[in-house]
Amino acid sequence: MLDHFKIGHYTDSINGTGVTVILSELGAVAGCCVRGAAPATRETDLLTDGKTVCSINAVVLSGGSAFGLEAACGVVKWLHEGGFGFNAGKHKVPIVVGASLYDLEFNNFSYPDISAGYSACQCAKSNNFQVGAVGAGTGATVSKVFGMESAIKSGLGISLFSFNGLEIAVITAVNALGDIVKDGKIILGAKDANHQYIDCKSILSAGSITFPTQNTTIGCVLTNAIITKEQSNILASLAHDGFALSISPSHTLFDGDCMFVVSSCKVKFEFNILTAVIPELTARAIQSVASIKKDVTIRAVNPMFLRMFERAFRAKSKSKS
Amino acid sequence: MLDHFKIGHYTDSINGTGVTVILSELGAVAGCCVRGAAPATRETDLLTDGKTVCSINAVVLSGGSAFGLEAACGVVKWLHEGGFGFNAGKHKVPIVVGASLYDLEFNNFSYPDISAGYSACQCAKSNNFQVGAVGAGTGATVSKVFGMESAIKSGLGISLFSFNGLEIAVITAVNALGDIVKDGKIILGAKDANHQYIDCKSILSAGSITFPTQNTTIGCVLTNAIITKEQSNILASLAHDGFALSISPSHTLFDGDCMFVVSSCKVKFEFNILTAVIPELTARAIQSVASIKKDVTIRAVNPMFLRMFERAFRAKSKSKS
Repeated sequence: MLDHFKIGHYTDSINGTGVTVILSELGAVAGCCVRGAAPATRETDLLTDGKTVCSINAVVLSGGSAFGLEAACGVVKWLHEGGFGFNAGKHKVPIVVGASLYDLEFNNFSYPDISAGYSACQCAKSNNFQVGAVGAGTGATVSKVFGMESAIKSGLGISLFSFNGLEIAVITAVNALGDIVKDGKIILGAKDANHQYIDCKSILSAGSITFPTQNTTIGCVLTNAIITKEQSNILASLAHDGFALSISPSHTLFDGDCMFVVSSCKVKFEFNILTAVIPELTARAIQSVASIKKDVTIRAVNPMFLRMFERAFRAKSKSKS
Repeated sequence: MLDHFKIGHYTDSINGTGVTVILSELGAVAGCCVRGAAPATRETDLLTDGKTVCSINAVVLSGGSAFGLEAACGVVKWLHEGGFGFNAGKHKVPIVVGASLYDLEFNNFSYPDISAGYSACQCAKSNNFQVGAVGAGTGATVSKVFGMESAIKSGLGISLFSFNGLEIAVITAVNALGDIVKDGKIILGAKDANHQYIDCKSILSAGSITFPTQNTTIGCVLTNAIITKEQSNILASLAHDGFALSISPSHTLFDGDCMFVVSSCKVKFEFNILTAVIPELTARAIQSVASIKKDVTIRAVNPMFLRMFERAFRAKSKSKS
């Protein structure tokens, strides 16, 4: 499905980082919505309504925090060598948008560089919807109310949808501060020594915890529906409703959450249908990381942190009474 | 003045491109305003009001269109080696914002890469306010109503201001589609065979001309005034009023105009004074390129293009009558 797009992953399992590139060599209508408060992004200004360029050549999702924005330069290089890009007079300028997530503490300090972005393009192909510790999801973790002390391995999550010719895929690199939830119940999160979920939202609601900064969930909705740039921006915003349905708590001040939407614009379809399904499809993509076969041991949260939280919670209750 | 900031330039005179970096290793409050319709930018999302990061380490102005965004990665590398950046847990993440202008057709196809950005940092120093064909202004040109056929050499323009302890500097890399004007009169623009200004605005107003894409003016306002992030965004917007005063026509669909504001926040000053002076200071910085000693011959516009324009203008007048 969605053969217009090629998807490529560069995975550095040793250092725990990577890149996922969604290529549209001949161009795709695109939009973006940054709802996180700590984003690391590139070329998002040209996606806003009213800007001239209406077709992009690639979306780059990468690890490495702001360092990892470098990977997009490798994608620019690959597209340039292939002769793709926005026709600007004598030269074609590849339009490559991107966002990065923070995985610097998952393993060694490392980030995807120019060669990593270039490699991701070289192995890109249609229907390459991989899940787990791959590409931008390689170093992704969730449930970080105590930073990396409580981090649980997450990864790249996918959901696919097709109906009467309409095709939608959602790719997410899930690296949230919060737990992953479904119908209000935690399905992926850190557990205490008694194997009970610690529940990030309850702990953060109690206050007195320094918010950890090792987060950010990024992703891309791919579709073949004929949409305008303005509509793709609306859909990118709606994709964030899927975050609210699947991450608890979502969109904190230390999540730099960013969603892109790209379309090959091949099938005419009622826009309201897209607005109805995209939040749920995004939630499903995020939730899919809960069923990833774990290649990292789920750690019980350090008891020292739990005691620290209990003290903070008691102090707060006392000051209220 | 403004010793808090170090300014560095990388100039590639042979290929006609370069980088200007404004460093604030220990951080500066910053804002941004993108008024151009064809921008090439990096990390501007974190500068919007309400986002968590309130201090940046560098602004990178570069040539090379979207390719030139790579230079910012060299600045990230240099800051990382020096141990500077936003404190994100175990690691510091350098916050480097940037914008690029289109100079790919000034000379050879070339763009400032990682090593160019790194070099600009290595030679950065206080008060390094250079003008002319230097740094991001190396390949900058104006008056491109006929694209590079009518292009006139421009460059980096500067204006400086100090008053009762308040210090402001404006750095602009002037690469507009329009002519440079002062008090409504053209002071830098392409001329016809009779040495008369061709007047880009009149020609574009007549229509029927394919807009050329080789443009974009970018710059940065530096100050020591104590301002908030929100106020720096307001000032960045006001800097664009200086474009309206000095470029004719300004902010076309093919100018990716972007202005940054950075402050060391050292001197308390009435904010209204800043709002009053920044448009004019920006205009003066842009106008200053008109007095740059020319190292490129001013070309008379190709008569073929003028004839094409005359035909288009006559056709338009005819269809109206």
